[in-house]
Amino acid sequence: MRIALDAMGGDFGPVPNLAGAALALAAYPQISTLYLVGRPDELRAELARIGLSDRRIEIIEATEVVDMKDSAVNAIRRKKNSSIAVATDMVRDGRADAVVSAGHTGAAVAASTLKLRTLQGIDRAGILTPFPNEAHGVCYLIDAGANVDSRPEHLVQQALMGWTYVKHVHGKTNPAVGLMSNGEEDSKGNDVTKEVFARLAAMRPLGLNFTGNIEGRDLLASPVDVAVCDGFVGNVLLKGCEGTAKAFARALKAELTASVWRKLLAALLKPAFRGVHTKMSYETYGGSPLLGVNGVTIIAHGSSNATAIKNALRMAVESISHRVNPHITESVERFLHSPIPPAGNLAEATPVSTHA
Amino acid sequence: MRIALDAMGGDFGPVPNLAGAALALAAYPQISTLYLVGRPDELRAELARIGLSDRRIEIIEATEVVDMKDSAVNAIRRKKNSSIAVATDMVRDGRADAVVSAGHTGAAVAASTLKLRTLQGIDRAGILTPFPNEAHGVCYLIDAGANVDSRPEHLVQQALMGWTYVKHVHGKTNPAVGLMSNGEEDSKGNDVTKEVFARLAAMRPLGLNFTGNIEGRDLLASPVDVAVCDGFVGNVLLKGCEGTAKAFARALKAELTASVWRKLLAALLKPAFRGVHTKMSYETYGGSPLLGVNGVTIIAHGSSNATAIKNALRMAVESISHRVNPHITESVERFLHSPIPPAGNLAEATPVSTHA
Repeated sequence: MRIALDAMGGDFGPVPNLAGAALALAAYPQISTLYLVGRPDELRAELARIGLSDRRIEIIEATEVVDMKDSAVNAIRRKKNSSIAVATDMVRDGRADAVVSAGHTGAAVAASTLKLRTLQGIDRAGILTPFPNEAHGVCYLIDAGANVDSRPEHLVQQALMGWTYVKHVHGKTNPAVGLMSNGEEDSKGNDVTKEVFARLAAMRPLGLNFTGNIEGRDLLASPVDVAVCDGFVGNVLLKGCEGTAKAFARALKAELTASVWRKLLAALLKPAFRGVHTKMSYETYGGSPLLGVNGVTIIAHGSSNATAIKNALRMAVESISHRVNPHITESVERFLHSPIPPAGNLAEATPVSTHA
Repeated sequence: MRIALDAMGGDFGPVPNLAGAALALAAYPQISTLYLVGRPDELRAELARIGLSDRRIEIIEATEVVDMKDSAVNAIRRKKNSSIAVATDMVRDGRADAVVSAGHTGAAVAASTLKLRTLQGIDRAGILTPFPNEAHGVCYLIDAGANVDSRPEHLVQQALMGWTYVKHVHGKTNPAVGLMSNGEEDSKGNDVTKEVFARLAAMRPLGLNFTGNIEGRDLLASPVDVAVCDGFVGNVLLKGCEGTAKAFARALKAELTASVWRKLLAALLKPAFRGVHTKMSYETYGGSPLLGVNGVTIIAHGSSNATAIKNALRMAVESISHRVNPHITESVERFLHSPIPPAGNLAEATPVSTHA
């Protein structure tokens, strides 16, 4: 496997990218070549500084970097030699199997959709973002922000892509797919999700484990593998949940540092707090695959540290080795181009309830 | 002030409602009559059990209770003698100044919109929900779930209602209003929010402190007083944030009870954890006013304890004493029926940035 890493991307530039690359090269022998895309002088200096030398590393020159202030599409159209553009070009041209970037999310989405195009049967790419989930370990939200103003067919495609990813990457027989809504009752939803509900329910006889409407809290607590929503809703939700976890952590820190006595006790409990952080932190879960493009694109968090970059590279390895894209095409064929079986088969496909 | 409390509403029935009533009667002498609406026998028994007797309490009979499984509108149409219906009737008929309910949110919204109707100039009611906010103490999300498929004019009205509430109840000169979006740049948004952005920006010269687009995380951390969004988005966001805080608390508890040693240390830090809980918990902030109806309706959390009910009653007192509804009508007049001043005045109305 050949992976192109946008080595300049993210809030902290090459430092966490190269440290994460070192961890991934040690952990994943499947990586035959890791392309570090960016400014060669900076990358060589950082490689030397951390003492990383591996014959699988190859530096690819990209003279520009997309700034977080750049508009997404303009950045890709104007900065043709940016690290994210060059890394994505490598996938488009068949020189790499995947691109991983912690840079400007909008630019990474624009680069992939403009350069790689979408898979047959998929109209819009979707960002699949992992959440810590108490029942299933992880639950993926799709779409976390690639596509706003989704039409019903877009959300149905997102559902099938998420289902396919979990089925093949996690080896689950029939992942549970929930539809994000403003209440768990079947009647809840807006105009778009009500239509999506009907279409996903109609796919139950074809073997889709559609569990019905779910709520924001279900993402973290209920036995659901995939939560489907429009990218506007998903982005607001993702940032709200992240913000809540951070606010909680800050409130906790403020209380635990309010006196010398509390500081002392808190120091003794450090392993416990580290355990919570590991469980609740995005770093543990890796990046977010951009599903539906004709190539493998993994978007990492802008403030990724080395562990997060390593886990994003792990996701690239998994997407390639489990052949996520060919399986998405199969799912489209199976669920969108098959006739719905007669209602007599419905009993076999009773959905697993999300709400125990 | 005469307040009708749906004494049967909520997950735990009369117990927290009456305990909260006792706290509120002690704290708010402005309450001249507190109507406890529900099944008289159950209410009298509970009053006796907790030893609450106050000449300001009056029991009003309502023989039915809306079940959480009932559909909202059907519940109001069919259970005409439910506690929430009877309590809302009292406001409609001028026998009470406000209704407070921890029962079925949809039923409370339906009862208020069907019985009280909306204020002049307001097409849709909106649920205003407080979030703990590090910069401003509290930030209100509107709409947290009353109205899905909002049109731009609905969101503009929600913005004005939220602004009016904070201005008068919190005595802020010019509250900061943000528009919930999928990114903080002006260009971000979906079709509806882009239109809302333009309309709110056009009201800056009239004195509206519209700070532009905000993200989910800003609710908890940025200097913004009101966050505006569609009720579908707001409901998903609210439940996602609540779910995250609860998941964080459970993860913390699991770590802190993993050994006898940790349990001991955690016991010594109990006041610190209680501090975090107080700060992050909805109980502290009270209920959610349903703004835009011709009356005062406060919706409390279904799992409200006595403190939460007390704070919801406090919100009713505040909405009445600060004359929120007449001020909403004034705001509609000022912002929606005034000509926009010429651009020369724009400099005076430069918005306060949300993003320091």
